[in-house]
Amino acid sequence: MRLTEGVEWAAHCAVVLSKLPPGAYLPATRLAEYHEVPPAYLAKTLSVLARAGVVESVPGRSGGFRLARRAEDVTLLDIVLAVEGNDLAFRCAEIRRRGPAPFIGGKGSPACLIASAMWRAEAAWREELASITVAEIADRVDRERLTPAARERAAEWRAAAATWPSR
Amino acid sequence: MRLTEGVEWAAHCAVVLSKLPPGAYLPATRLAEYHEVPPAYLAKTLSVLARAGVVESVPGRSGGFRLARRAEDVTLLDIVLAVEGNDLAFRCAEIRRRGPAPFIGGKGSPACLIASAMWRAEAAWREELASITVAEIADRVDRERLTPAARERAAEWRAAAATWPSR
Repeated sequence: MRLTEGVEWAAHCAVVLSKLPPGAYLPATRLAEYHEVPPAYLAKTLSVLARAGVVESVPGRSGGFRLARRAEDVTLLDIVLAVEGNDLAFRCAEIRRRGPAPFIGGKGSPACLIASAMWRAEAAWREELASITVAEIADRVDRERLTPAARERAAEWRAAAATWPSR
Repeated sequence: MRLTEGVEWAAHCAVVLSKLPPGAYLPATRLAEYHEVPPAYLAKTLSVLARAGVVESVPGRSGGFRLARRAEDVTLLDIVLAVEGNDLAFRCAEIRRRGPAPFIGGKGSPACLIASAMWRAEAAWREELASITVAEIADRVDRERLTPAARERAAEWRAAAATWPSR
């Protein structure tokens, strides 16, 4: 079981986008440059984030991406499910209904106990990811991880890279 | 993100093996028959379970598989990690260290906050899977899911299919 690298990219992009002032956007190529990731692959990641309603975009030369809602309202789970899809990792093929001593039960039967346990674990995973927002991560990165100089460089870079489609 | 179907097979096989009396084994082909799964693929799943120390086997015509330890000591997590591997699903490529405003920190630096959150979620997933054993599942399947007739058919099937290598 492995998550794609797009999850890491998407989460970092969301953090950068959360720092934009209202009305500002960042072009996909600049987001790729900021994270030194392949622009073509990042463009795909950004488009799945857009389809999932996590980011929104304005096309064209002065266009770009921004968060589709407040960073306080975007959880890490929103981002992971946007990139990985919403399907459960464990799929139950109901093999308990096969063979010489099958479980016999119609629709509405209680789930297989193995599947139930697998899904409880996934619920715990999702709950944990849903408990942290992009706003919290962005705030803690600034306070706990970046030096004042790095914070300043990031702010300067954003100011230079931002586009203002409606101006 | 998707778990392989081998996880479901392995968990069901472990439940069946937990019902064997001491000294008894089940051939891989009979386990495949019991679950109506492809014998060649199931053989691979059983061999990864053996490598992980979840099951053990005796080769040959009168050989087969049994749990390598008490069913009370085999958790669903043991089975999932045996089949899927022990690697974390989220791999951090430290992209925070790239670009115009990188995180600067040597070895021993605190982890990226995105990675930390992803790994907390995985820890929650693992904790949930580690909280249930094959013994509990097997016991609850018998009490809550199978009819008395199905339980009896299962016991008869096991008695007929079991091998006793040391007799």
